[in-house]
Amino acid sequence: MVGAGWAYGRGMRAVVYQGPHDVTVTEVDDPRIEDPNDVVVKVTTTAICGSDLHMYEGRTDAEPGIVFGHENMGTIVETGPGVVSLRVGDRVSMPFNVACGFCRNCRAGKTGFCLTVNPGFAGGAYGYVSMGPYRGGQAEYLRVPFADFNCLKLPPGTGFENDFAMLADIFPTGYHGVAMSELRPGETITVMGGGPVGLMAAYSALLMGAAEVFVVDRVADRLRLAESIGATPIDFSAGDPVGQILDRTDGIGTDRGVDAVGYQAHGAGGQEQPAAVLNSLIEVVRATGMIGVVGLYLAHDPGAPDEHSGRGELLVKMGRFFEKGLRMGSGQANVKAYNEYLRNLIVAGRATPSFVVSKELPLDAAPEAYQRFDKREAGYSKVVLKPAA
Amino acid sequence: MVGAGWAYGRGMRAVVYQGPHDVTVTEVDDPRIEDPNDVVVKVTTTAICGSDLHMYEGRTDAEPGIVFGHENMGTIVETGPGVVSLRVGDRVSMPFNVACGFCRNCRAGKTGFCLTVNPGFAGGAYGYVSMGPYRGGQAEYLRVPFADFNCLKLPPGTGFENDFAMLADIFPTGYHGVAMSELRPGETITVMGGGPVGLMAAYSALLMGAAEVFVVDRVADRLRLAESIGATPIDFSAGDPVGQILDRTDGIGTDRGVDAVGYQAHGAGGQEQPAAVLNSLIEVVRATGMIGVVGLYLAHDPGAPDEHSGRGELLVKMGRFFEKGLRMGSGQANVKAYNEYLRNLIVAGRATPSFVVSKELPLDAAPEAYQRFDKREAGYSKVVLKPAA
Amino acid sequence: MVGAGWAYGRGMRAVVYQGPHDVTVTEVDDPRIEDPNDVVVKVTTTAICGSDLHMYEGRTDAEPGIVFGHENMGTIVETGPGVVSLRVGDRVSMPFNVACGFCRNCRAGKTGFCLTVNPGFAGGAYGYVSMGPYRGGQAEYLRVPFADFNCLKLPPGTGFENDFAMLADIFPTGYHGVAMSELRPGETITVMGGGPVGLMAAYSALLMGAAEVFVVDRVADRLRLAESIGATPIDFSAGDPVGQILDRTDGIGTDRGVDAVGYQAHGAGGQEQPAAVLNSLIEVVRATGMIGVVGLYLAHDPGAPDEHSGRGELLVKMGRFFEKGLRMGSGQANVKAYNEYLRNLIVAGRATPSFVVSKELPLDAAPEAYQRFDKREAGYSKVVLKPAA
Amino acid sequence: MVGAGWAYGRGMRAVVYQGPHDVTVTEVDDPRIEDPNDVVVKVTTTAICGSDLHMYEGRTDAEPGIVFGHENMGTIVETGPGVVSLRVGDRVSMPFNVACGFCRNCRAGKTGFCLTVNPGFAGGAYGYVSMGPYRGGQAEYLRVPFADFNCLKLPPGTGFENDFAMLADIFPTGYHGVAMSELRPGETITVMGGGPVGLMAAYSALLMGAAEVFVVDRVADRLRLAESIGATPIDFSAGDPVGQILDRTDGIGTDRGVDAVGYQAHGAGGQEQPAAVLNSLIEVVRATGMIGVVGLYLAHDPGAPDEHSGRGELLVKMGRFFEKGLRMGSGQANVKAYNEYLRNLIVAGRATPSFVVSKELPLDAAPEAYQRFDKREAGYSKVVLKPAA
Repeated sequence: MVGAGWAYGRGMRAVVYQGPHDVTVTEVDDPRIEDPNDVVVKVTTTAICGSDLHMYEGRTDAEPGIVFGHENMGTIVETGPGVVSLRVGDRVSMPFNVACGFCRNCRAGKTGFCLTVNPGFAGGAYGYVSMGPYRGGQAEYLRVPFADFNCLKLPPGTGFENDFAMLADIFPTGYHGVAMSELRPGETITVMGGGPVGLMAAYSALLMGAAEVFVVDRVADRLRLAESIGATPIDFSAGDPVGQILDRTDGIGTDRGVDAVGYQAHGAGGQEQPAAVLNSLIEVVRATGMIGVVGLYLAHDPGAPDEHSGRGELLVKMGRFFEKGLRMGSGQANVKAYNEYLRNLIVAGRATPSFVVSKELPLDAAPEAYQRFDKREAGYSKVVLKPAA
Repeated sequence: MVGAGWAYGRGMRAVVYQGPHDVTVTEVDDPRIEDPNDVVVKVTTTAICGSDLHMYEGRTDAEPGIVFGHENMGTIVETGPGVVSLRVGDRVSMPFNVACGFCRNCRAGKTGFCLTVNPGFAGGAYGYVSMGPYRGGQAEYLRVPFADFNCLKLPPGTGFENDFAMLADIFPTGYHGVAMSELRPGETITVMGGGPVGLMAAYSALLMGAAEVFVVDRVADRLRLAESIGATPIDFSAGDPVGQILDRTDGIGTDRGVDAVGYQAHGAGGQEQPAAVLNSLIEVVRATGMIGVVGLYLAHDPGAPDEHSGRGELLVKMGRFFEKGLRMGSGQANVKAYNEYLRNLIVAGRATPSFVVSKELPLDAAPEAYQRFDKREAGYSKVVLKPAA
Repeated sequence: MVGAGWAYGRGMRAVVYQGPHDVTVTEVDDPRIEDPNDVVVKVTTTAICGSDLHMYEGRTDAEPGIVFGHENMGTIVETGPGVVSLRVGDRVSMPFNVACGFCRNCRAGKTGFCLTVNPGFAGGAYGYVSMGPYRGGQAEYLRVPFADFNCLKLPPGTGFENDFAMLADIFPTGYHGVAMSELRPGETITVMGGGPVGLMAAYSALLMGAAEVFVVDRVADRLRLAESIGATPIDFSAGDPVGQILDRTDGIGTDRGVDAVGYQAHGAGGQEQPAAVLNSLIEVVRATGMIGVVGLYLAHDPGAPDEHSGRGELLVKMGRFFEKGLRMGSGQANVKAYNEYLRNLIVAGRATPSFVVSKELPLDAAPEAYQRFDKREAGYSKVVLKPAA
Repeated sequence: MVGAGWAYGRGMRAVVYQGPHDVTVTEVDDPRIEDPNDVVVKVTTTAICGSDLHMYEGRTDAEPGIVFGHENMGTIVETGPGVVSLRVGDRVSMPFNVACGFCRNCRAGKTGFCLTVNPGFAGGAYGYVSMGPYRGGQAEYLRVPFADFNCLKLPPGTGFENDFAMLADIFPTGYHGVAMSELRPGETITVMGGGPVGLMAAYSALLMGAAEVFVVDRVADRLRLAESIGATPIDFSAGDPVGQILDRTDGIGTDRGVDAVGYQAHGAGGQEQPAAVLNSLIEVVRATGMIGVVGLYLAHDPGAPDEHSGRGELLVKMGRFFEKGLRMGSGQANVKAYNEYLRNLIVAGRATPSFVVSKELPLDAAPEAYQRFDKREAGYSKVVLKPAA
């Protein structure tokens, strides 16, 4: 089925990676229905993600020509003949993971590790190096494969647009970190990292009934935002965060922990310390607790400070981990496992994740937005692009 | 209540640590009811454990004078006035963990991390350095604190004695490794290590309905025993065990993994490689799988091959762990969470864990048994002592 | 250990059942340490519960002489010699269930079904017919058996007194209903009954992240209170509640349901219909959903409207239940499984369950309070008594 | 893709319902690819199910013309253009439930309650009244919709054919009953009903590590078969089964229960008692236990013994259910949640469910097989048909 006003062959504008620190908004081919289960979506909002910067900074194997963008939502303009639950005009959110819905991992809810969409690797995504042949959505249009599975329907209209835009990645990713930590209502949790994902983790923990949530960062804006949602900010530039949290918990630490930083962790002095966050969590989470790791760790990191971390081998405090009987879950979020529930909370007025959005810009402003985000300029921490604007 | 024939002050024989590679059977004071919730048990069977060797070899801070023995069972000869569910004459098995039953961790089933019995540390045990003031059971009698909680009643008589002797530690410990890996019936699992705990893990996995269980070791006797219970033996002296298992699983690996080796892992060449087992599991367990670690990792290891591992910091393949979305649980077994269920399987004739017992000896033979076990002599892999013999 | 100012033999005042519709405040013996694991608590707050009315109304086998009161909190004045974690002066809350902590059910967290404290029945309680020999706490002092297990420590002082008073029964009971329904954040739930327990269930569901909570009742005050905490009130006197909720959920119904009414359910016309609430939940909960039943159903009810319900046999819509693949959990709350978590939420300022308290009275006002509560007079829906006042 | 030798338009033979107690093997149209996600399967084995008798006996609203058969396996002869994981020639097993794979229930693993395939009802199936427009597989060929989701791949060849034939329904259904009861290894369970599903439940419980399994029936052949797999047979014609099981469990009863009978339960005297099995389980399962109901209960039963059971309203012992804190799950099996795991157990040689198969017959023998099965003749308890024979 093809929507009125939609036809192939006109081309479209898209954010294209040209090389380290260089993206442009360029005319590319428009997407087509390639498989009976595809739909094409006209993108209404697409966000820039911290993980886009890994490619932007040249710290991956990304080749020029990639269209960026894995945090996408919009309106369906065409459906393939195999699609049964979607109609032209439906407003939809797409998880950043591309997933088939029928492989063993998808059926187990582990849609971030789909065995079908990216042969030879568990997991696929839009617009990301090594994550399969799926073009990103920082563009006017987006092809969505296995659409019945990958599209989450949203209420019609334009309400909650920026809240819904958080459903593609960071809200479910933050939630995933907390879910992996197996937090139960009335427990306490430490969230390492107060960037957008860390804030979403803290926000999720509070939604789930955490008694107290500590957010560790050193950027004042992030700590303020953490406090504004009811979390307790911990400024690690003011001293060891483990000690600060132990002091506030009668020496017990927290029941749970989330790593929302990953391998690019920095010490208080500013130097990169890939295992610093993980080891802090091992110290601060109480015996029998659990840690959810959503911050990225790479198996190959050409820019790593040393040979071992270049191979993703980090000096982890296994002795303490074992002695305390800790558990740890890890990996990118299985967005599909959470997004409908989080959508329902937004629609019910009980969640407003758009509080992390710092700026709305048209698609053409993407190159400047990347540049300023890369410099961590104020106001560019979470940019949403509006391709139709 | 005091049993007929039991009276204080006669003294008793016990296995006493005198220093590295030196234990003796020595006369010591007999135990007394010190607290209203204590009982005193006449020990009928007590096993020597691989973890006793850590102390025996002088690789811990153990001081001379410790009475060894944390795998104990016997018959109650006296009960304190607070004890309500036990009677003199009851035959009982005691978990190696000493636990209170009412602290937060005990109530959550995490009795290996009791917050009451060993102040300043989560977890206590009988006859073990740093695990609290509880004398071991390689002796004629044993004091059991919080007895209503710590004693598991067994059927009267002498049936299944060596099977029940496995309930104090290694059967639940092997089971714990599998339980932490969250194996479900029909899945596959790799067990690293074919010693008594590894064999109990393999045996537990089969009891729980595993489709295939791989046991990795290089000792022929262990591999034979693994095969005899229905597991698939993998001899790592014949080649990389990861490759061998991938070859037998269409390149997929196994759904789950258990580390039954710990920090004293050795490479094929015989050298100590503290993270080798853990990193092999990270490679061999398939994406989204889970690893249960029951092999010991220490936060302080004076005999470690390098400074980092001396502090329990190991080079773990975090990049691969994250990329595959793995999860990991760890820590000593919460025996109380499993022992009644495993007892029921023994009584029903559906489990016979005594197949790992290699020799029965009187208490006086303990010094020689330690010496031969330490040299890994055939027939001394799992010795049970009979203090009353 | 005995607190200053506490001595036996003075007697004390207590609320004593004299017969149907007759309780008095009478002088009785003061409680003593009867077992090494006992403590004696000076009661600071004790609440009247809807289930006390079952006895008050003569609809049970309760004999005259029972001291009522199972929702108790206070300060320890004496500890038995086996008690290790409590001190004289500690402020504590006691679950309404009396439990041993070491039987099979207690260890599984099912403390409402303790196999030790009330021989021949699974479960014990303070001051309740058939629930064991434990005197109630609508009195100046209370003996607490197995005190290390049964006492929950509270912060010293008098803060949050009425919030903490809700920890003995109704807050955990409401929470239990939701927990048994296996609600996850972002789901919807129907709570049948807007009395104190129903309101606590609704409040718990919101704390756990429910997207929408429907509370069904016909009493305007209850519906107003439900609305004030963020729930959606459904007045069943205005029409079939199932239809009303289906209308508000696109015909889908809710994901979960809680029965906070029990066998004394009434139809819109006012007549008793013991299965009405249960069958409404079977209709309103969507296929694959789950129902938590905390409203009381009795195996013997002399006052039942017919012979079958007198034996606790009700006409349940099993055909629909099966066709929809529903699940159901039931039974009185295992308070100990929840109370520490709920305490933490109160202390952190994230839960204020005292919003259901309608009146504070001295102990001597109990007879009048029972009379007015029995008549469902405004202001007597949840009375807390202050024996020390 | 179309397999060699397969072409439309030749017609095929199929088992067609003609009216009560009358099925014929008749020529019908052969199936076609109707949707891009369809495949067509050449049926190699298809079993007759006890639930087929509900239609056969005229106790449903089934209209003449229905092709029966929901326990199907075979080889793919054609694939639609949307199918990505299957090839012509693949040997596959299909769950009796037809499911889409992407609706909310399917994603939650509740594929027996698919919201897509049978509009207006939660759940679809092949060849069954009210379960959607899907023709049955007691035929030469079968159309399978949403094939990537609904087909389970089997090893090529003809090995394990009758074992694999049990994967479509009764092995997963028996397993589902036990899974819903939340049995853990070392627990005990009562299975009411020793027909094919009850035997599969008992067999599953033993595979999962049950300590003891009681199978209740009165047919000697069934009880013998139960005993042969290691279960304890209980002959209810010899006395109340509840009493017999209590006697063998020290008066405790079993931890778990499975209802593999349903609404057509009969008393010892032979009369139909729709709630008898359910109420027996409520008595025999110990306090805090759980019951899994896979025996069918209908919301409308024209042949019921009384008006209430005609509407699916049964006199359930709710008072006892609540007093004991029991839980209950129900509904048809979500086959897709289990079939791959059970297949793996068959392939590994650890499960051989074909022990329940009583006879192999060609398709043409179906009418006689239905007639004899309906009369409960020996040897017809579980017939598998071979359409290609």
